[in-house]
Amino acid sequence: MAQKPSIPKGTRDFLPAEVEKRNYIFNTISTVFKKFGFAPIETPSFENSSTLMGKYGEEGDKLMFQILRSGNYLSKLNEGEVSPMLTNNVLDQLPLEERVNLNKITGKIAEKALRYDLTVPFARFVVQHQNDLSFPFKRYQIQPVWRADRPQHGRYQEFTQCDADVVGSESLLYEVELVQIFDEVLTNLNIPDFSIKINNRKILSGIAEITGQEDKIIDITVAIDKLDKVGEEGVIKELREKEIPEEAIEKIKPLFAMNGDNASIMAEMREMLASSEVGLKGIDELEYVFDMVDAVGLQRAKLEFDVTLARGLNYYTGAIFEVKANGVKMGSICGGGRYDDLTALFGMKDMSGVGISFGADRIYDVLNTLELFPASITKGLSVLFINFGEAEAKHCFKLVSQLRQAGIDAELYPSSAKMKKQMKYANDRGVQHVAMVGSQEIEKGIVQLKNMETGEQQELDINQLIEKLK
Amino acid sequence: MAQKPSIPKGTRDFLPAEVEKRNYIFNTISTVFKKFGFAPIETPSFENSSTLMGKYGEEGDKLMFQILRSGNYLSKLNEGEVSPMLTNNVLDQLPLEERVNLNKITGKIAEKALRYDLTVPFARFVVQHQNDLSFPFKRYQIQPVWRADRPQHGRYQEFTQCDADVVGSESLLYEVELVQIFDEVLTNLNIPDFSIKINNRKILSGIAEITGQEDKIIDITVAIDKLDKVGEEGVIKELREKEIPEEAIEKIKPLFAMNGDNASIMAEMREMLASSEVGLKGIDELEYVFDMVDAVGLQRAKLEFDVTLARGLNYYTGAIFEVKANGVKMGSICGGGRYDDLTALFGMKDMSGVGISFGADRIYDVLNTLELFPASITKGLSVLFINFGEAEAKHCFKLVSQLRQAGIDAELYPSSAKMKKQMKYANDRGVQHVAMVGSQEIEKGIVQLKNMETGEQQELDINQLIEKLK
Repeated sequence: MAQKPSIPKGTRDFLPAEVEKRNYIFNTISTVFKKFGFAPIETPSFENSSTLMGKYGEEGDKLMFQILRSGNYLSKLNEGEVSPMLTNNVLDQLPLEERVNLNKITGKIAEKALRYDLTVPFARFVVQHQNDLSFPFKRYQIQPVWRADRPQHGRYQEFTQCDADVVGSESLLYEVELVQIFDEVLTNLNIPDFSIKINNRKILSGIAEITGQEDKIIDITVAIDKLDKVGEEGVIKELREKEIPEEAIEKIKPLFAMNGDNASIMAEMREMLASSEVGLKGIDELEYVFDMVDAVGLQRAKLEFDVTLARGLNYYTGAIFEVKANGVKMGSICGGGRYDDLTALFGMKDMSGVGISFGADRIYDVLNTLELFPASITKGLSVLFINFGEAEAKHCFKLVSQLRQAGIDAELYPSSAKMKKQMKYANDRGVQHVAMVGSQEIEKGIVQLKNMETGEQQELDINQLIEKLK
Repeated sequence: MAQKPSIPKGTRDFLPAEVEKRNYIFNTISTVFKKFGFAPIETPSFENSSTLMGKYGEEGDKLMFQILRSGNYLSKLNEGEVSPMLTNNVLDQLPLEERVNLNKITGKIAEKALRYDLTVPFARFVVQHQNDLSFPFKRYQIQPVWRADRPQHGRYQEFTQCDADVVGSESLLYEVELVQIFDEVLTNLNIPDFSIKINNRKILSGIAEITGQEDKIIDITVAIDKLDKVGEEGVIKELREKEIPEEAIEKIKPLFAMNGDNASIMAEMREMLASSEVGLKGIDELEYVFDMVDAVGLQRAKLEFDVTLARGLNYYTGAIFEVKANGVKMGSICGGGRYDDLTALFGMKDMSGVGISFGADRIYDVLNTLELFPASITKGLSVLFINFGEAEAKHCFKLVSQLRQAGIDAELYPSSAKMKKQMKYANDRGVQHVAMVGSQEIEKGIVQLKNMETGEQQELDINQLIEKLK
């Protein structure tokens, strides 16, 4: 019996309208990346397991899709006499004490894994091709990644990342450029209102330093993050629950009272962190970014200091970014930051990097929710010629070819089916015009053109037709 | 110690110039597909094993990349008492009679596989989404596929297929359109000389029928295919070796003498196959295609009947296509044909389909060999501003932002490194112009612009600069 077709949970088919919408997002992003001097690279879908495993923590290793050795490694083993405990159908039915520790052979049967993100492959790429690259190296990469996450709303096992990174320079100019890129991409996508939050890992280190709570910086950040929701008292309560000493809490308190524009908050932070060298360095860096951003201006974005921003705390070493679309229920739609020595994993030291990532799936949902996709990108075929029979079809097929040569997308219905069926096809495909050419029209050298939206009908010769549809 | 980075054999990293060249090919192809009314779809990288396994023959199953169950299925099994024969490190060291028939458990540990081509996933897609599609459904798909083939020159484990197929119509108009698409894509890619070979499975069936050699049709086709190389005598020798009876060989002989244009060869074929209904049907079909192609004309392609064309003989049921670039040592660069009832595998009957595939990797090699990639696609950054220090940098960064707002790609070197180093970066990146703005230029409100190709140098204000670089 034939199978009922389905796809693995957490994966997606994309129909034409969805592909067009997704490409609109990818093209908008890559156009801006290019304008800012980033060049595209691509890496293989799978890497050697040794490249990926252990780079994302235990959780990441678990979520990695591993690939069985190619050429069916296992097939070489069959036909021998087989241990009855395994042939006897199968794993699940074996008593525990008889079960094979198959984990031990995983390394033998799976040496490759689908990439988990684009950052580790990028680091591997930079080290491997270092002699062919000039530094600072600015690359962008728009490719799918795979995670064996439990599928749920808005979380997929296969999704596309859109990353831009610069490696090999500590210049803060790149932080400024990345802010500009967020601004320009999301403005070009016509998202009406969005905020770029910025923080600096060195400021968080400074807070840890002045409070003497270096080991509790995550607890502190998580607590402060709730200021909007639970108020000052609520934050202090949580800090106490996390066993932050009272004198440390006293030193944190100035954070609650800070307000005003970025410049005045920076001034207050400078006072608070006066005794921390690393904290002051973080403020210097942020102020440089604010200053340069002010100098060049942004289109729609608001750039806001957010001391609670701590994504990937163990990972970032300088600036930390996050972008939110305001007025839409949705987590951050972009993120990024500066990390030092990512390539050290592969033996290349002192390569500071800074990068950002656009969450294309979330941006897709925002554009859909706010109805921001331009109508033009999912517009159907320009013109469908109705098929009235063999002689007419041959005539029309030539017209279709002429239109295509003029760059117009056009089709002839493939058989002289009933008019109703042909018109249904035209409707289903969302064609913009229908062209009718019977024997009379052939004689007169014209085409009856019907606008499917307005219903308007016109008689045109081929040149007028090309002019009209161009 | 840090790992020495590498990628799995048979996979590739693509550097920026390669990505640009590949995208040029993909964009040229998809632009033509769209103009002919084909709409893009995308399917997941991996499918359920049951969707793919058994669809490509035994060889195909072996070359399938299977994916270990997500979340590390095996980890649930460990910690039990373990059979000493497996812990005792490892498979390879086990005596044959003790080896476990791990094949039997493969289905348990791997339920998914990377797609092997785009055709079977397309058939699955059509059946799964049949209620959301209108037929005939014309889709194109440009996505990677994976095969665990032994890597060798020009053969990769990951490569991109570019397919266009129509499903749900038997109209021969689509054969004509697909010939036009071959012609237009390869003309647009500027390939100077190429031939589209066409055959029809029904003609091969006709030959089998009139010779009474239905079961040896592949042997016959393979032998005839060598006519150019080994001559008539050589072909007859091979036919005898394959135990084709003399009276059958007599009936095949007229094929050797056929020459002239497609029309006259068709006339001779019609005589030869006069007693075979299916053979005559094949000739009717081919003649229709030749007739329509003549009516609309081709740009550069020659369309040639080739009775030896038999690719995927068990698969195709009507037209068979293959495209060769003449004057380049290279196998076929495109192929395709009509297949009936592909979707029947998934329970949907009577859906005839016809499709073609562009071999992007081979086309890439042809364009490289013949130096046909337009220079414009790998042109470097428009302008790099030299960095003379903090004050100048701030000034230049504003100019860079103005240029970008005008749609020009521009960069400021990120630090005031030595001139030599900055110029080396400009050269390595292939930038088109270098802009120099020191304190004097700031005062005068100008930019010194140097054309890196001609060496020509100009003083321009920002408006002149935008005008010049646009």
